[in-house]
Amino acid sequence: MKVLMCTPNICEGTNLEIVANIADVIRNAEGVKVMDVSSDANHNRSVLTYLGEIEPVLQATEKMAAKTLALIDMTQHKGAHPRVGAVDAVPFIPVKNLEMEEVVQVAHRFGRFMGNLGIPVYYYGEADPNPERSRAKNDSGKLMQDRLGQYESLEERLEDPDWLPDEGPPIFNPKSGAVTVGARTHLICFNVDLHTTDLSIAKRIAKAVRHSSGGYRDVKAIGLAMEDRGMVQVSMMTTRYLNTPIPRLLETIRSEAARYGVNVAGSEINGPIPLSALMEVFRHYLQAHSFSVDQIIENALIS
Amino acid sequence: MKVLMCTPNICEGTNLEIVANIADVIRNAEGVKVMDVSSDANHNRSVLTYLGEIEPVLQATEKMAAKTLALIDMTQHKGAHPRVGAVDAVPFIPVKNLEMEEVVQVAHRFGRFMGNLGIPVYYYGEADPNPERSRAKNDSGKLMQDRLGQYESLEERLEDPDWLPDEGPPIFNPKSGAVTVGARTHLICFNVDLHTTDLSIAKRIAKAVRHSSGGYRDVKAIGLAMEDRGMVQVSMMTTRYLNTPIPRLLETIRSEAARYGVNVAGSEINGPIPLSALMEVFRHYLQAHSFSVDQIIENALIS
Repeated sequence: MKVLMCTPNICEGTNLEIVANIADVIRNAEGVKVMDVSSDANHNRSVLTYLGEIEPVLQATEKMAAKTLALIDMTQHKGAHPRVGAVDAVPFIPVKNLEMEEVVQVAHRFGRFMGNLGIPVYYYGEADPNPERSRAKNDSGKLMQDRLGQYESLEERLEDPDWLPDEGPPIFNPKSGAVTVGARTHLICFNVDLHTTDLSIAKRIAKAVRHSSGGYRDVKAIGLAMEDRGMVQVSMMTTRYLNTPIPRLLETIRSEAARYGVNVAGSEINGPIPLSALMEVFRHYLQAHSFSVDQIIENALIS
Repeated sequence: MKVLMCTPNICEGTNLEIVANIADVIRNAEGVKVMDVSSDANHNRSVLTYLGEIEPVLQATEKMAAKTLALIDMTQHKGAHPRVGAVDAVPFIPVKNLEMEEVVQVAHRFGRFMGNLGIPVYYYGEADPNPERSRAKNDSGKLMQDRLGQYESLEERLEDPDWLPDEGPPIFNPKSGAVTVGARTHLICFNVDLHTTDLSIAKRIAKAVRHSSGGYRDVKAIGLAMEDRGMVQVSMMTTRYLNTPIPRLLETIRSEAARYGVNVAGSEINGPIPLSALMEVFRHYLQAHSFSVDQIIENALIS
């Protein structure tokens, strides 16, 4: 069984009736499993997470996008998160028995669907046919939304010959804006709480592990005060999680924290995670070098 | 989705063509996934491991048992492992969304099927309607095969009013013998290798962790020499694995080994394992107290 995940970000996080109507398109789709729907009122944005085989996921995503374009009017949208359109970002993620090349093809099929609806489409991640464009601007670490500029400057951006859309017309559509469509590996959010209220310690440790200041290549990290817990947190994101297994991150943080006499209070994994990212946890801590994912009963059920 | 596992032990481990014929009954069954077929020539015994929803698993098991009764002749069987019949032991194991009571009912339905074929049936584990009988004999720690006496003494056993079968006639069937049918939780085989060739250390540690000499209630353990590895091993079996999480076992062994200046070289989990037994590995070592099995993508696919 091939399993593809999709986590569209749509520009509605306050009117939960609209979000429910859009999510219902996915819930009612044959062969697609909804893992999560989360809405953030401050960002005025929702993220749907669902998975299944390629064709059901692609078809459900197309129907969901058409419904979103019908229900959301970007001329009325305000929110804290950068965004370029009603269907703002649509990443496709390989979960099981899929090569990235197949996922890129799905992203491009979805992009052509959106382009045919008259929406300017920008590909990102592994689906990006113009990685030069990103590199030239020396901002490949930024979200596509940041690089494009937000919805408000989209009309101008579309007139820039350097920013012709990858699909669809280079014409500003005030109601729907543009869409960014990507293919990428699963993104893991891993947070480690420290038994201290000294935020500078979390910040120094975040600096030690993140790529931008000399840490692990595929890790982004910030230090945060968790006032309700009376602690601080190193909050991390990693894309190529097989390059930086969770145990290596945790043990680096534990060792850095020990310099200040601070202990790890706990950790959390936010959102969905594939078994492949957890296998290193078993192998590392159990020293179970030959342990195979095929031994896990739940995995056998879907193989 | 409800998921039931079945791991029948059949009395053939040398003629692999017969084993393949029997295993094919399961492989060809609709709605059943075969995880493993292993044959042991020394024991002259094979274990099939498969799973699926209740009805497909029960039907496949009935067909497999009928085929086994046709192909195996116990009058010809020799092997190192205790056994009472051609279809020697049939344990049913809850894997997902199943209460033990439902699994006991499946075991009893299978037992009645075997009884109707004229095979004496003895229930064990949670399916045992006569736990008093086991307790009275003060040998509840032994295999049902050991308590019953082996195939060779079965004819005599069946004449003992204390050992009337739970299903089927109390009549010795020379070709097929009897069958033991059980319902139990998943059994985990966990082995820890130690960086020493001193077998007495593995034996002392096995003694420290196993129930029979004062250790954890649901753990059986022995010390073994692993001559090919130049190490010794603490080899363990645990049934109620939620009572004795793997990390607690490993860390107890690590601490006991440290008394002798010996390090843990590695560990292995033998055979299939459910995610529920691995969740404690994350929670313990990552200190990820709120981590939920619902976050695991593969698990969501079968829920």
